[in-house]
Amino acid sequence: MTYTAPVSQIAHTLSRIARLDEIAATGAFPNFDADLVAPILDEANKLARDVLAPLNAIGHKTGAKLTETGVVPAPGFADAYAQFVQGGWMSLAFPEAFGGQGLPKPLALAVFEMIHGANMAFGLCPLLSFGAIEALLAHGSPELQQTYLPKLISGEWTGAMNLTEPQAGSDVGALTTKAVPNVDGSYAISGQKIFITWGDHDMTENIIQLVLARLPDAPAGSKGISLFVAPKYFVNADGSLGDRNTFKCIGLEHKMGIHASPTCVMEYTNAKGWLVGEANKGLAAMFTMMNSARLNVGLEGVAVGEAARQAGVAYANERKQGAAPGVQGFATIIHHPDVQRMLATMSANVQAARAICYACGAAADLAEHHPDEATRKSAKAREDLLTPLAKAWSTDRAIDVTNLGVQIHGGMGFMAETAAAQFYLDARITPIYEGTNGIQAMDLVGRKLSGDGGATMSAMIADVRDTARDARATNQPKFVAISDRLDTATAALESATAWMLTAMKANRETGLSGATAYLRLAGDVVGAHLLTRAALGEPAGREADRATAAAHFFADDTLPHAPGLAAAVSAGAESLRGADVLWAAD
Amino acid sequence: MTYTAPVSQIAHTLSRIARLDEIAATGAFPNFDADLVAPILDEANKLARDVLAPLNAIGHKTGAKLTETGVVPAPGFADAYAQFVQGGWMSLAFPEAFGGQGLPKPLALAVFEMIHGANMAFGLCPLLSFGAIEALLAHGSPELQQTYLPKLISGEWTGAMNLTEPQAGSDVGALTTKAVPNVDGSYAISGQKIFITWGDHDMTENIIQLVLARLPDAPAGSKGISLFVAPKYFVNADGSLGDRNTFKCIGLEHKMGIHASPTCVMEYTNAKGWLVGEANKGLAAMFTMMNSARLNVGLEGVAVGEAARQAGVAYANERKQGAAPGVQGFATIIHHPDVQRMLATMSANVQAARAICYACGAAADLAEHHPDEATRKSAKAREDLLTPLAKAWSTDRAIDVTNLGVQIHGGMGFMAETAAAQFYLDARITPIYEGTNGIQAMDLVGRKLSGDGGATMSAMIADVRDTARDARATNQPKFVAISDRLDTATAALESATAWMLTAMKANRETGLSGATAYLRLAGDVVGAHLLTRAALGEPAGREADRATAAAHFFADDTLPHAPGLAAAVSAGAESLRGADVLWAAD
Repeated sequence: MTYTAPVSQIAHTLSRIARLDEIAATGAFPNFDADLVAPILDEANKLARDVLAPLNAIGHKTGAKLTETGVVPAPGFADAYAQFVQGGWMSLAFPEAFGGQGLPKPLALAVFEMIHGANMAFGLCPLLSFGAIEALLAHGSPELQQTYLPKLISGEWTGAMNLTEPQAGSDVGALTTKAVPNVDGSYAISGQKIFITWGDHDMTENIIQLVLARLPDAPAGSKGISLFVAPKYFVNADGSLGDRNTFKCIGLEHKMGIHASPTCVMEYTNAKGWLVGEANKGLAAMFTMMNSARLNVGLEGVAVGEAARQAGVAYANERKQGAAPGVQGFATIIHHPDVQRMLATMSANVQAARAICYACGAAADLAEHHPDEATRKSAKAREDLLTPLAKAWSTDRAIDVTNLGVQIHGGMGFMAETAAAQFYLDARITPIYEGTNGIQAMDLVGRKLSGDGGATMSAMIADVRDTARDARATNQPKFVAISDRLDTATAALESATAWMLTAMKANRETGLSGATAYLRLAGDVVGAHLLTRAALGEPAGREADRATAAAHFFADDTLPHAPGLAAAVSAGAESLRGADVLWAAD
Repeated sequence: MTYTAPVSQIAHTLSRIARLDEIAATGAFPNFDADLVAPILDEANKLARDVLAPLNAIGHKTGAKLTETGVVPAPGFADAYAQFVQGGWMSLAFPEAFGGQGLPKPLALAVFEMIHGANMAFGLCPLLSFGAIEALLAHGSPELQQTYLPKLISGEWTGAMNLTEPQAGSDVGALTTKAVPNVDGSYAISGQKIFITWGDHDMTENIIQLVLARLPDAPAGSKGISLFVAPKYFVNADGSLGDRNTFKCIGLEHKMGIHASPTCVMEYTNAKGWLVGEANKGLAAMFTMMNSARLNVGLEGVAVGEAARQAGVAYANERKQGAAPGVQGFATIIHHPDVQRMLATMSANVQAARAICYACGAAADLAEHHPDEATRKSAKAREDLLTPLAKAWSTDRAIDVTNLGVQIHGGMGFMAETAAAQFYLDARITPIYEGTNGIQAMDLVGRKLSGDGGATMSAMIADVRDTARDARATNQPKFVAISDRLDTATAALESATAWMLTAMKANRETGLSGATAYLRLAGDVVGAHLLTRAALGEPAGREADRATAAAHFFADDTLPHAPGLAAAVSAGAESLRGADVLWAAD
């Protein structure tokens, strides 16, 4: 399987959308220098293209295996992980205090887009470490931080997140894993966790589990869960490793895709763990892990979509079949307008999703580091608003894009070991994990939209209006056409927003009926806005042509649906009324 | 895996959409009696529910195997096939002259919807026999018909279609398999065919291959292909079986889904075959096979979507997770508006696709049997117009519907052996085989729309207008709302149709750029029309409630997109102009 990172497009999005210059101007990234970007992207591309992509097909075919001594990764993965650690890729955007490189988050997103694009099953291992690191950074005591963070940030150890139990998926408050205090201040954790990504493996000498569990006196529900850290091997005072902890992987799930990413059933039997943050405040800590993970899952959608796009382009350029307008003899299928439409749809949607994810990462950096408090606050609100879009919109598009990738391949796309098929199968998990896309939609119209009476969305819409105005001011026909489409779509988003704010106040159920359509609409408009923003003012040349073509195609193909989506948002509750006959027993 | 046929919905669609009464009134179906419908559907449901559905999961897990002596089907399939033959299910809609039951085609569609819904991999075996039978009925000599049709129609033998070669997929004209005349009037066929569904197995004592090949003096391209029939075992004059022919299965594809349907690589080495129809007229014969197969593949989309819907309803009723409005304690997820939206979307789309497919089958019967020539002609045109919609719209919806089925299951949906996952994987082939959906769209805007200057589409649109008028005349709020949505959507379809007719004349490539969006738009409008038609005038009761809820939900959720689709139709070519930079090498 081949993958080459779209380095120039990524660099363009970093510069025009993530605005690395603005992030650098906060002064919080003294190690950052704009000249670093190109060599970092080039080196990351080498890792992705030369080390990780060649392992993707064998990983799909072979998968990870559970043996007597634990999980054994797919062939080549341990070596590749060692190279990943060696290259310092884990530490890019983490604080120097714990050995990180202190670089802006979007730069790490760019690198991890490449890693996921080359090999999503591999990329999940560091993705889970991210969650563990961010939970410890935000909530761990200085002692826990010092014990675990340096090795997690270097990548020498990996982390995993233990949330789900059979009865507690989307509703983690239903979990029953127990944590009983030991006399030494630690806790004895017992229970079973499922769907634990990279919960075990032998690629590193230690694995650090972040585990949600319930104290003996904990209140019921989500207000009674606490977060614990439990290493596979205990860490001695001198940093050396001691005895093995009493948890293990007792089963691996047999999944549709990401076969090389072990999905573990983990059994904890009086395993020793330490409380992270306050007792019964595990939910807040979990959201720290989840927010990072949600953006990163959105990024997986971008990545696997880009990989599918590349496979589609390659096949369309290679497969000869029938005649096509203007071509003598057998033509490659790329000459068919319908194939071009599929490729353009894939490209435009991947670029839009990339822009949304990178913009979300940029907002996170500004929210943390901008010197001005008001700016930090508004950036935080922007990050929070963009997170469900980054997660759900990008991964829904990943389904569409990888589906088109299969379609371009015709019968070959249905063969189990075609790259296009693997991307389709791997992508299917992304709308599910780290909060299903339905939950993202509830989060968007609930906490994120209604939480501040629509203020953050209004600010977003004002930005879209600015973009439409700037596009019109160019007087260039393509940009004027985009501006027309944006105006209509933005009006639809505004009216849907007003409806949603009222509905969520009047009757939450009514609002929630339109949540998924609202998320789609918001993602379409924000995606079009960012694509247009990336194209505007770009000096003539390849990058300008590509950015303009993507913005124009997306505006023509996607934005005309905005009024229809707005109608579906507000009609949702009414058309569901009486619809229960549709799922009643016959 | 469980499946129970939605018998009352199917009966309702047969009665209100397929209009079995009109078909019976042609006088061509003396064996048909309206009282037969219910017992036939009930018996078919027993086969589907009790015999075929229990084999679906094991078929997915085990697959068919290639052994030294040929292909061995998945466990239980041979027994099930014997029961299928025993029940006379193969012969329903075929002529009595060859042992068929001479019943209307939509009745067979209804039965095969159940078979595919219970076990699509199994259903593919008779589906391919259909193609062989119809090719022989339309083009075979009386002698060939007498030799092969009775046993094919009884199901004692199966048929397969050998079209594709590695370099000749969508463009069958590129095939190179040779047929050299033998002295006895037969031909010696040599070459390799791929993707041959149920090309070999041991469930019946003979298998009849329909093979496209090229005579020595044949013109190049699609004008030089001829159709041959080649039995696995030769048939003696007395009907007994003789020597084995010289073709065999030399490999099975490893596919994403339909694992229990063997997809064979067939090697022909001077295999003996007989010409079907005229030399070099194989393309016309192939279209006979393909038209039947296209409708049947659309029906597979309906069937697998219905199966996914049932699994989604079952899971949503069983899975408890978190709180929901109006429910005490843990609620089953069916109480969440977003889950209800998914279930309603699945139901409405499956019902719309069913209506389109059954309407297509009904038109085929009228086209063949109506006493009035003008009616036959217009019915034929209606069938031809509906065929690409039945195939492509229904299978695109099958992807959407099975995707929602996975989503409702959350993490469980991603497990390889969950029923929801199997439906998603099985469904993925349907937009590809028997002419990719891109090819269906070209067929729709080319032959079917432009071929008669839009006359058949105009007649269709007039029917939609009638439905909207009838809906409004009820003065019932839901129907008036539907009527409003239909009016707007029909106007969009009309303007897109006018644009497309002009574009296809002026510059075919421009038209083809909008073909897929046009097919989606036409399917949405026709689907809404048929759902509404099925609901109108239905006496109050469960069936009326269900039909009205489906029509209303579909109108609210889908039809508002019509103007956006019309915009995408006409903008296609313009937005693709300059888009090649999106797939150019970096």
